Amino acid sequence: MTRALHTLGAIAERFGLELRGDPALDVDGVDTLAQAGPTRIAFLANPRYRAQLAGAGAAAVVLRAADADACPRACLVAPDPYVAFAKIAALFERGPAADPGVHPSAIVASTARVEVGASIGPCCVVEDGAVVEAGAVLGPHCVVGRDCRVGAHSRLVARVTLVQDVRLGKRVLVHPGAVLGADGFGIAFEHDHWIKVPQLGGVVVGDDCEIGANTTIDRGALGDTVLEEDVRLDNQIQIAHNVRIGAHSALAGCAAVAGSATIGRYCLIGGGAGILGHLSLADRVTVTAMSLVTHSIREPGEYSSGTPIQPNRQWRRNAARFKHLDEIARRVGAAHKEPES
Amino acid sequence: MTRALHTLGAIAERFGLELRGDPALDVDGVDTLAQAGPTRIAFLANPRYRAQLAGAGAAAVVLRAADADACPRACLVAPDPYVAFAKIAALFERGPAADPGVHPSAIVASTARVEVGASIGPCCVVEDGAVVEAGAVLGPHCVVGRDCRVGAHSRLVARVTLVQDVRLGKRVLVHPGAVLGADGFGIAFEHDHWIKVPQLGGVVVGDDCEIGANTTIDRGALGDTVLEEDVRLDNQIQIAHNVRIGAHSALAGCAAVAGSATIGRYCLIGGGAGILGHLSLADRVTVTAMSLVTHSIREPGEYSSGTPIQPNRQWRRNAARFKHLDEIARRVGAAHKEPES
Amino acid sequence: MTRALHTLGAIAERFGLELRGDPALDVDGVDTLAQAGPTRIAFLANPRYRAQLAGAGAAAVVLRAADADACPRACLVAPDPYVAFAKIAALFERGPAADPGVHPSAIVASTARVEVGASIGPCCVVEDGAVVEAGAVLGPHCVVGRDCRVGAHSRLVARVTLVQDVRLGKRVLVHPGAVLGADGFGIAFEHDHWIKVPQLGGVVVGDDCEIGANTTIDRGALGDTVLEEDVRLDNQIQIAHNVRIGAHSALAGCAAVAGSATIGRYCLIGGGAGILGHLSLADRVTVTAMSLVTHSIREPGEYSSGTPIQPNRQWRRNAARFKHLDEIARRVGAAHKEPES
Repeated sequence: MTRALHTLGAIAERFGLELRGDPALDVDGVDTLAQAGPTRIAFLANPRYRAQLAGAGAAAVVLRAADADACPRACLVAPDPYVAFAKIAALFERGPAADPGVHPSAIVASTARVEVGASIGPCCVVEDGAVVEAGAVLGPHCVVGRDCRVGAHSRLVARVTLVQDVRLGKRVLVHPGAVLGADGFGIAFEHDHWIKVPQLGGVVVGDDCEIGANTTIDRGALGDTVLEEDVRLDNQIQIAHNVRIGAHSALAGCAAVAGSATIGRYCLIGGGAGILGHLSLADRVTVTAMSLVTHSIREPGEYSSGTPIQPNRQWRRNAARFKHLDEIARRVGAAHKEPES
Repeated sequence: MTRALHTLGAIAERFGLELRGDPALDVDGVDTLAQAGPTRIAFLANPRYRAQLAGAGAAAVVLRAADADACPRACLVAPDPYVAFAKIAALFERGPAADPGVHPSAIVASTARVEVGASIGPCCVVEDGAVVEAGAVLGPHCVVGRDCRVGAHSRLVARVTLVQDVRLGKRVLVHPGAVLGADGFGIAFEHDHWIKVPQLGGVVVGDDCEIGANTTIDRGALGDTVLEEDVRLDNQIQIAHNVRIGAHSALAGCAAVAGSATIGRYCLIGGGAGILGHLSLADRVTVTAMSLVTHSIREPGEYSSGTPIQPNRQWRRNAARFKHLDEIARRVGAAHKEPES
Repeated sequence: MTRALHTLGAIAERFGLELRGDPALDVDGVDTLAQAGPTRIAFLANPRYRAQLAGAGAAAVVLRAADADACPRACLVAPDPYVAFAKIAALFERGPAADPGVHPSAIVASTARVEVGASIGPCCVVEDGAVVEAGAVLGPHCVVGRDCRVGAHSRLVARVTLVQDVRLGKRVLVHPGAVLGADGFGIAFEHDHWIKVPQLGGVVVGDDCEIGANTTIDRGALGDTVLEEDVRLDNQIQIAHNVRIGAHSALAGCAAVAGSATIGRYCLIGGGAGILGHLSLADRVTVTAMSLVTHSIREPGEYSSGTPIQPNRQWRRNAARFKHLDEIARRVGAAHKEPES
């Protein structure tokens, strides 16, 4: 495979960056500051790596103006080097090797519609009433269930399952193993056993969302589960029925949101964090990793729960005391405070 | 597609509900109290939505007798409106579009048995010695491994993998991405490396169980991993080898149960909760979300661990103090209490 | 199916165990101490099961020398009975029913290479530039993406997805639903929306690793995500981009490791534990279940966070006090301690 080649000058011009160095220099890829060789572009965004700058071997380094003087190589000066680097790196990314059309091993229902330019990979199944819009790419082993829609230029990387009534916007990227539109967890207790509460809603995913590997988003019970545009979900996240996530929010791996919770716009939910059902989070709320949100949060800001990591012997002594913390508090005269829920 | 139509009178009679209103009125679906239009049935179970009753536009509302006078529309009076609604909603649910027989793209071993009326979907693989009983439905991309059994009228929605020696009862529902019968995590340390402990048992799932998307249930090391009847598992749950879960217990998303733990009947395990290996939980134990159970629980009741969510600045100060809680306790004269494990 | 038969004498000789009993006795399998009948071998490793020894019905029991006198049956004496039992059990394990060659339903790119003796199962997809080495076994529905390599005698049990640039060593075992090589979670915030940071690295998995069902291991952003040899991952684990896990470390189910974290050799990470990004853990660090590691750990040993499980009513009172723990500490004269991060 031949690699793409770009000159530093062309890159600077394309992304509006100031170049300090030879504009005719060819580069063929990107790499870390520590590893990049003379045909690669590196970047410096996190100050903890500044010490690596002196030894940089890259063709050029994307960095802030304040770091440029310390750089022994060409510089591409950017106000946000990480953003600029992301755009430059995309020049060298290999797209999916997707031929337009339907692979002969795929099974497409006669009532489904696959638009011109869409690509349906090996062993895909597209069921009744489904639509795959122009430019969408389905990798191998995807299932697009009844009445689902895959928006234009969206990509299901491989082995993605859209169960039923799932509508993806444009440029949505879904990673392998994700399941969208499975039944929500609706059960009602009758006398001595459970009965299933039918799950009749769908899933709506806005434009430019990304959904990680093995993440699950359940269909609504009544009405839809909704991700607004530009929501970013990492791997192994669980989104229950009738959750709504506001635009531009991002959830890290293994986070879980229980049924009918509403998350605002521009929220950041840490890895493994949990949000109980029927709660609301305001816009711009950050929840740190593995915290559990047990009540609605009305103000933007950062929220946490949990205790610090310690050597186990110390932790055991402290944890044992936690079981008597109310008594300890009473002894120190804090007894007038009512327990809060 | 034409929708099912039912009269209010027929619904009331079918489910033994008291109807206050016109029995001849046709309805064609269900919806939320806030959204339902004049051909839909809604319900009021949670008191927090009672204020919506005055503005209800539904054909009829399923509710308790005490709420009937406040309802401006027809009423279907039920002692448990949520249970009654679940049954009514099922009338309008679309079943899987499953034709009996084996899809031409499916691969069924010659020693496997597919009973009359079962449906094997596209790209399914049914291996040696497997049995799919009458009326069972396998959606696309399911694997039924060696010597597995899918009980009558069970349904594997899509892309479910039964690895080996997995026996499902009747009317079991398994959602996409679930993996049953993978090897348990059995490793033994020899000098300086791990050796694998063979996993030789199976998985037994009782009648009427439901298993969520991307949930995993490992085969036993020796003997089986067991779910008794009517166990309800949400998405992304991990059930390790040789766990036993009693009938009618329900586990919410992302819960995890370690090897050889035993959970009683009618237990409720909250989302993200963990149960360590070799423990026993009595019947009717409730564990709240993201709690960790580190010892057996012999009495029914509700159990919790963790700390409350707080603004991060406050939390940091408190969490830092937790590291010295034993010393704090000693200072206040609680030093006579032994640390507990 | 006929079962394998072995004599006790042959087993003792093969694994260097002392036999006390009849070497000519045939055995046809293994079972638990409580269940094993007269043709099965059982074992006693955990002292909590010693009481079962008197009633043992097994052909022979694998145990420590100190327990031999109390055993009413033949004994196979081993310094580590669990290790010895694991090896004996492997004699009776059924291997995958894998015929060498490519199943007619599999789709193998013309530029891929499948070596002699490898087995490619039903509906597998092997993409451009991929290599499946000799003796490797791919069960049904596996995807081996572009430029991936499956090392000799490795096994993808079923429905495993290697997205791109994933290189597995020899004798690697991967369980169903695992996804290796999906994009890491790289996003950069530009003004008012996210842009994707291209993920250009791969995944390298050393010899003799095992990877559990529905576990995810993301490709590196730049450079690779690496598991050294003999790393053991349970189910539903999330390994983010550019993580490095040292040889012989084992992670229990639902653990999660954030981006660029480094875990040493011989570490043990408990179920549901979390490790934040860019941290380092020394060799031989143990983290207990559901603990969150928020700073690097430089010393071997056991580490924990969290609070103990309690009846909910007691817990609520204590948890409410945690919100004021800093104030409580100040009152008892611990105010001179600075909060720690």
